[in-house]
Amino acid sequence: MRKVFQAELQSIGEELVEMTQLVGIAMEQAWASFTNVDTELAQEVIAADARIDFKQNQLDERAIDVLALQGPVASDLRMIVGSLRMSASLERMGDLARHIAQLTRLRYPEPVVPEVIMSTFSEMARLDIAIAKDLGELLETRDPEVARRIIESNRQIDDLHASVFRVVASPDWTGSAPTTADTTLTSRYLERFGDHGVSVARKVTYLVTGEWEPGLAGETPVV
Amino acid sequence: MRKVFQAELQSIGEELVEMTQLVGIAMEQAWASFTNVDTELAQEVIAADARIDFKQNQLDERAIDVLALQGPVASDLRMIVGSLRMSASLERMGDLARHIAQLTRLRYPEPVVPEVIMSTFSEMARLDIAIAKDLGELLETRDPEVARRIIESNRQIDDLHASVFRVVASPDWTGSAPTTADTTLTSRYLERFGDHGVSVARKVTYLVTGEWEPGLAGETPVV
Repeated sequence: MRKVFQAELQSIGEELVEMTQLVGIAMEQAWASFTNVDTELAQEVIAADARIDFKQNQLDERAIDVLALQGPVASDLRMIVGSLRMSASLERMGDLARHIAQLTRLRYPEPVVPEVIMSTFSEMARLDIAIAKDLGELLETRDPEVARRIIESNRQIDDLHASVFRVVASPDWTGSAPTTADTTLTSRYLERFGDHGVSVARKVTYLVTGEWEPGLAGETPVV
Repeated sequence: MRKVFQAELQSIGEELVEMTQLVGIAMEQAWASFTNVDTELAQEVIAADARIDFKQNQLDERAIDVLALQGPVASDLRMIVGSLRMSASLERMGDLARHIAQLTRLRYPEPVVPEVIMSTFSEMARLDIAIAKDLGELLETRDPEVARRIIESNRQIDDLHASVFRVVASPDWTGSAPTTADTTLTSRYLERFGDHGVSVARKVTYLVTGEWEPGLAGETPVV
């Protein structure tokens, strides 16, 4: 029984890692489509998001089967419930990458945002992609150092997100009102992606150590 | 055993209803603070959000206890897992109300958005508050008619959200770039609140009927 359970748990862990890879690719391609005004690539990201949703459903069904058939208790039970939470965060990260691809398609053939803000957004996207990669590593190694790196990346994203509003408020900003709206949404999507990444990192850390990492306080529910 | 389980399940249901009431009050007060530029009321909403977070943790701990002690299977198990998902959506609705209160406080003593957009936002907020109320009723009655009403309210919110971008793009829009950014975020928060409401409604309907309501397709994961 215990062996079967461990195998199931490992398999769920592997599927979570696979989800981090899919959302990492989604953000990478969404950002490439956004930067290069590539509507075909944007379309691929939008289509691929269904695969992430499917993956989540599969993983959740598996977790529910384990709950039903193995009746885990204590830390094993928390691990399964935690995996349901993590899959929900990862699914949402896929949605946010899709939203960026959708903006690309919506404004085609124009770029979504002005050149002046692109270096800020590219840095946010780079950090988001790094977070997705680090999440895969964290799930595999459970190394608290990786969790701290994710939190630090997200802190940088938050700072960049705040700086976007300073750029928009500066006299140099010449974007039209619709462009300002698109800029705001893009920033919000890039910022939320990082938040969900931290949410997953907190969960892994909590499940491993039983304690919340200092500096991990945030909007995420505790269980 | 069965009796204990039914009592636990009912108690979790009551806590979910209480959460719908708390997030309904949060949005009601957040919207009043936004409309009246009332920074004290905004502060109350921000403080009260911690109570919603606490409620979620309590509910989730209870659900995990039920999973551990009762080892439910089949539809009972899905009900418990569903309640974990619902509490997460409700907690997020509380966050979104808090974000609106935070914008009020940030821009005080100025109103956050121009008068010209206020009737649209007030209607979105009214629908959001109605959704929170309907969710309480849906959890108590499981009446599919109430679920359909929630979906219809959210459809109206989506239309209003789209109309905000038309207003911002019109030549009559005189808001500054920071005001346009605030308007975009406000619209997004009001819109997401409704999405999470639909997510809860879908879950209740699925748990009761075993089928997804037609027209309930959306971003929400299936389990």
